[in-house]
Amino acid sequence: MTVSLRKGPPTPTPYPLASRGTDSAPRVVDVDGVQFGGKEFVVIAGPCAVENEKQLMAAAEAVCRAGARVLRGGAFKPRTSPYSFQGLGKAGLELLAKARRATGLKIVTEVTSSETLGPVCEVADILQIGSRNMSNFALLKDVGRSGKPVLLKRGMAAKVSEFLMAAEYILAEGNPNVILCERGVVTFDTVTRNLFDIGAVPVIKALSHLPIIVDPSHAAGHREYITALSRAGLAVGADGLILEVHPHPDDALCDGPQSITTQHFADLMAELAPLALAMGRSLHA
Amino acid sequence: MTVSLRKGPPTPTPYPLASRGTDSAPRVVDVDGVQFGGKEFVVIAGPCAVENEKQLMAAAEAVCRAGARVLRGGAFKPRTSPYSFQGLGKAGLELLAKARRATGLKIVTEVTSSETLGPVCEVADILQIGSRNMSNFALLKDVGRSGKPVLLKRGMAAKVSEFLMAAEYILAEGNPNVILCERGVVTFDTVTRNLFDIGAVPVIKALSHLPIIVDPSHAAGHREYITALSRAGLAVGADGLILEVHPHPDDALCDGPQSITTQHFADLMAELAPLALAMGRSLHA
Amino acid sequence: MTVSLRKGPPTPTPYPLASRGTDSAPRVVDVDGVQFGGKEFVVIAGPCAVENEKQLMAAAEAVCRAGARVLRGGAFKPRTSPYSFQGLGKAGLELLAKARRATGLKIVTEVTSSETLGPVCEVADILQIGSRNMSNFALLKDVGRSGKPVLLKRGMAAKVSEFLMAAEYILAEGNPNVILCERGVVTFDTVTRNLFDIGAVPVIKALSHLPIIVDPSHAAGHREYITALSRAGLAVGADGLILEVHPHPDDALCDGPQSITTQHFADLMAELAPLALAMGRSLHA
Amino acid sequence: MTVSLRKGPPTPTPYPLASRGTDSAPRVVDVDGVQFGGKEFVVIAGPCAVENEKQLMAAAEAVCRAGARVLRGGAFKPRTSPYSFQGLGKAGLELLAKARRATGLKIVTEVTSSETLGPVCEVADILQIGSRNMSNFALLKDVGRSGKPVLLKRGMAAKVSEFLMAAEYILAEGNPNVILCERGVVTFDTVTRNLFDIGAVPVIKALSHLPIIVDPSHAAGHREYITALSRAGLAVGADGLILEVHPHPDDALCDGPQSITTQHFADLMAELAPLALAMGRSLHA
Repeated sequence: MTVSLRKGPPTPTPYPLASRGTDSAPRVVDVDGVQFGGKEFVVIAGPCAVENEKQLMAAAEAVCRAGARVLRGGAFKPRTSPYSFQGLGKAGLELLAKARRATGLKIVTEVTSSETLGPVCEVADILQIGSRNMSNFALLKDVGRSGKPVLLKRGMAAKVSEFLMAAEYILAEGNPNVILCERGVVTFDTVTRNLFDIGAVPVIKALSHLPIIVDPSHAAGHREYITALSRAGLAVGADGLILEVHPHPDDALCDGPQSITTQHFADLMAELAPLALAMGRSLHA
Repeated sequence: MTVSLRKGPPTPTPYPLASRGTDSAPRVVDVDGVQFGGKEFVVIAGPCAVENEKQLMAAAEAVCRAGARVLRGGAFKPRTSPYSFQGLGKAGLELLAKARRATGLKIVTEVTSSETLGPVCEVADILQIGSRNMSNFALLKDVGRSGKPVLLKRGMAAKVSEFLMAAEYILAEGNPNVILCERGVVTFDTVTRNLFDIGAVPVIKALSHLPIIVDPSHAAGHREYITALSRAGLAVGADGLILEVHPHPDDALCDGPQSITTQHFADLMAELAPLALAMGRSLHA
Repeated sequence: MTVSLRKGPPTPTPYPLASRGTDSAPRVVDVDGVQFGGKEFVVIAGPCAVENEKQLMAAAEAVCRAGARVLRGGAFKPRTSPYSFQGLGKAGLELLAKARRATGLKIVTEVTSSETLGPVCEVADILQIGSRNMSNFALLKDVGRSGKPVLLKRGMAAKVSEFLMAAEYILAEGNPNVILCERGVVTFDTVTRNLFDIGAVPVIKALSHLPIIVDPSHAAGHREYITALSRAGLAVGADGLILEVHPHPDDALCDGPQSITTQHFADLMAELAPLALAMGRSLHA
Repeated sequence: MTVSLRKGPPTPTPYPLASRGTDSAPRVVDVDGVQFGGKEFVVIAGPCAVENEKQLMAAAEAVCRAGARVLRGGAFKPRTSPYSFQGLGKAGLELLAKARRATGLKIVTEVTSSETLGPVCEVADILQIGSRNMSNFALLKDVGRSGKPVLLKRGMAAKVSEFLMAAEYILAEGNPNVILCERGVVTFDTVTRNLFDIGAVPVIKALSHLPIIVDPSHAAGHREYITALSRAGLAVGADGLILEVHPHPDDALCDGPQSITTQHFADLMAELAPLALAMGRSLHA
């Protein structure tokens, strides 16, 4: 008698579209030629918030020169306090468009509400969903329907499964272009702003085919740790970085302590170069 | 010689409207005669989601009989997975309106997007902002402008200061009627769904003049602990409870394990009665 | 045809001696007539550390008068810094013995090493294992072999299962007299010293037959929240309290901010009385 | 007029001996020629527990061949359950001594009590203090007095300041040879055993002159993530690694899921080589 031992069917994953599955290749999210999830280690850099033309152009030109491929900068800022600077809004978007024309950098900027999704889409090459909105499912569906590439930041205490499920909300609207971002989780210690969960990167690489980048700025909260954490992010296998860079961090309207200068950024890129080589990744520089 | 010792001016609070200040009395949020923050310990009860007329009416009538003053029930459900039951939407709102007519209970139901705020406002006596949207500042401003009383649930890893700042977003729109809700925070353990942060109640009472209720259902995640945590919430000084009650918890479309039966709810209310007396609170029963 | 549906045998628990099992009654730990786990809600009070005779006697007499049954006071203090006050050692033990003779209170004091277990056993009615030593298994075995009742505090980030397993180490040495103590766990917030995990009380009551008390002083870290959390501990179903009380908290050599005055303690006991009655518990007062 | 701007005196650090201070060079802990904190990236490897001669010798020879400098292996095992394998005790120490003779590897093994410190010191080149004993101050003082190099693992929820203060307990006994080890902290997620706090490495480098290594095995809890986290540890600037390696992980008496095979270890070392070069570190291989 022949006994045929068969495993049962695989457990259905709760996030079929975000899942690696059994045979899917890693997804490469192509933003007009800048590829997340491919051979290149892609660096996004720029100020926390767009403050004025001079600040943004100085930041954009410097990060472009040092090898960044995408410019970050918030026009609509979600702030813990209603009394903090909330961003320049549409005027900020216009400055971002101008910086793109001047540098050729792609633009990623945060969308904080469905109401402002239209104007943001006109300027952004990549829509950013911030940590505070990771579970704002109405907004996730709307950015899914927009068709734009989405940079989805992990919630401050989101489990990996919840993070992938948030991506699933976007994917389920027919938008395959999701880039994940680990940015630190809440912590019981106060020496860093958040706890950089670098282990989430290989976990997500095992579970999902989506590209994932890391955000050492928000993870650390203090600029002196940014270079070390950026090296770690590259070495662990992330597909890129997003960094806060400001011409004059001490004058920044938000996130000054975790913003690095343009010179610091250039030095950081130079430090990454040999590591990228050792990792078999290319670095635009 | 007379030495005059004076303290310096008080540190300006980051949430001036939510703050207790030096002389403000506790705020009583009056919902058509049901008062949060006064002498009554107010109990909100009902199913996680409105599923159908029979289920909702059975729950409403039972919790009304046992002493609840407000009926909860989700019509728009924020779910971790896009493939889970998302609520009945407007049909659910209509059933809530019907339950109100039948029982006289006030209605609290969640609003998950600015788009659906209009229809929710037509039915809800209190708008619920769920934990996942505590930092959805666009939505907070919109519910602030609606003028409706708001039940604001604490984010799953929100600091008390962030929680009060979220309330400040609503208050700053000219809406003074905010009821806070502690519902448990993320935890390293797995014996409960969340970690019920009961200590947040006296902390918030010290910092803010706003009423605060507790949600033992989401804190515990398992129905066998609900009664004990409800007693604790009353004894610690909270202004009320919100509980998930379902006629048939094992058939519930969401949150079944943490939902209690209508009989369990009646027993719980009976257990609370002598404690309320000992605490000098009234309990509608 | 009759189909007999049988469940399999129950999953063997990993902590057979600490487990509630299917038929075991709650364990009453009797300390010379003071019973933990019975009808009485037992209150332990006293200073963090024994500092001098005057301080200890003042505290002991006051807490005795107000209804405490057991005097706490550290002679060997585990301190985060090697440069902080480490306790009076054996001289502190002698003062505790004197306070017992003067008041009749039972004594609980911490044992921090096997080397000092002998002298501590000569004075202590209950041996305290502090949070930092919850997983010091060599010490757990030694206090297990001592035969003395043990007050086992939960580690600062111990899961309930790890906590019960630590108790199992003591029980497995043939010592059934273990009293558990929830004292707060690490937290991402800074408004309290720890996060009081009140939900652990009903969870442990469901899993274990051992008595459990709570420690609002270490949970809160600030004296203004102690009364509210004590009420909550009673209402949730804990078997007692341990509180830091000092004649002059602002002069305390350790834990001053979370220590209450003797008058505050007396007021707290008066507040607990009607709640104890409502809970069907007796309170020695 | 000359204005002399002076900063005030530096805030006294709570851990003067562990502190970097203003002018101290990084400390190099020299273990018979193996230097922690110098140019070499030092790799410690071996089984969680010494199980038998065959297992230990196979592991020792393989990790030695692949470039490890120190053999790890527990003879006294602190286990969550009193019913789990507790280690071979002195027989395990003898096997470690034998493995040292056969391979020339240095030995690190855990000491769990002052009682067994003597026999452990006879065999160990480095004494390990495990996470569970990080705040066992009596034991810290004893290993301080032993004069042996100490590998101090961070407690599962210890703040960096508490970790450095635990080191201070050892240093204050006149023992300057402390090697710190980050091994992951408690987490709200379940995808990894702990949360690898890689950010603690640059923080500790900024605050302290002590060497620090990382433990990806305990951080991850699953072997498939070990290589990626080891790369990250090297890139972030740690001074070495400690890894669990077992000839047959699936048969391991403890920590099997996070143990890697000897082949996996050799591959991992080969992957580290080009990164070490890029980082300007030497790797013994």
